[in-house]
Amino acid sequence: MATTKERFVETTADLFRRQGYVATGVKQIVEEAGSPFGSLYHFFPGGKEELGAETIRWSGGVYGQLIDLFFEPVTADGPYDIVAATRAFFAAAAETVHQSGYADACPIATVALEVSSASEPLREACADVFTAWIDAAADRFAAAGIAPDRARELATTFLALLEGAFVLCRATRTTEALDVAGATAADAVAAALA
Amino acid sequence: MATTKERFVETTADLFRRQGYVATGVKQIVEEAGSPFGSLYHFFPGGKEELGAETIRWSGGVYGQLIDLFFEPVTADGPYDIVAATRAFFAAAAETVHQSGYADACPIATVALEVSSASEPLREACADVFTAWIDAAADRFAAAGIAPDRARELATTFLALLEGAFVLCRATRTTEALDVAGATAADAVAAALA
Repeated sequence: MATTKERFVETTADLFRRQGYVATGVKQIVEEAGSPFGSLYHFFPGGKEELGAETIRWSGGVYGQLIDLFFEPVTADGPYDIVAATRAFFAAAAETVHQSGYADACPIATVALEVSSASEPLREACADVFTAWIDAAADRFAAAGIAPDRARELATTFLALLEGAFVLCRATRTTEALDVAGATAADAVAAALA
Repeated sequence: MATTKERFVETTADLFRRQGYVATGVKQIVEEAGSPFGSLYHFFPGGKEELGAETIRWSGGVYGQLIDLFFEPVTADGPYDIVAATRAFFAAAAETVHQSGYADACPIATVALEVSSASEPLREACADVFTAWIDAAADRFAAAGIAPDRARELATTFLALLEGAFVLCRATRTTEALDVAGATAADAVAAALA
């Protein structure tokens, strides 16, 4: 069972993903977490900004595990098919976005765009998460035999395609951009392996 | 000289690009536009949401002209080099984002993520702009000799890479993602031409 502090972070993460940082008020967080105001400020003396930074980093860790899930270091069935894994990652993202009524996509992109010119602690938290995701994906691409510099470029391309497609899919309420972006990402990985 | 109505839209566009929809209050718009409250509601009886939708569509038109600027239908110097144009587009975006202190990127992406699950009129305005940009880029790719279906996929890839790289660049305060995304986009265009 989640502690009160964990419940604040999980509630805030859900609100950030759907409506961003600015629209998420402390009052709404407290109500949805079912805990009093005083409790929030007990755990997060810096209020919404401190809770926000912790939520961004927590979400980064949770979603970062998806890279481990799709890009398994070793498979029981033989050599590691990183092109298929790339395709599967985007297909799963498209399915998730569709199933949620185009609400659930990246947990931090909305916040990143809102705060980048407004709050250094929050911008840095977003930057750290994006960098960690790129590092993790680059490690997996490198483990599949791609040169480290190229692996990092591929990981950056992968994340840019994913984040950009999320923007387009949420606005247009179709999965077309994720379908196309997934094919582009898989092509880029295949070309790097060739 | 801009009319009062135009001044409201231009002021709002600047605020949307830097801080998004939710953080932009009617009070700030009115102050920065130098016009009274009553004037805003005279031109936009629906208030912030109506002004927001008009601003999104206006920004879409202004930024859509960048596609015409970079992807000229005919060049005086000979055949149309759409691969170089793609590379130049991302290089110019990187330069603009850097010069603005990582504040100026896409005029509607922040708004799109904020409102997609909150306001249908605003979501539709964003969707219409993204679709218009994809259509315009697809026309240029098709004019360069790429089959229409593939041209549309390329245009979607182009925009997803651009939007995703903007998110990463604004958060990390480097142009690395735009540099990498530009190379990926140029490679994809070259592959489609081959």
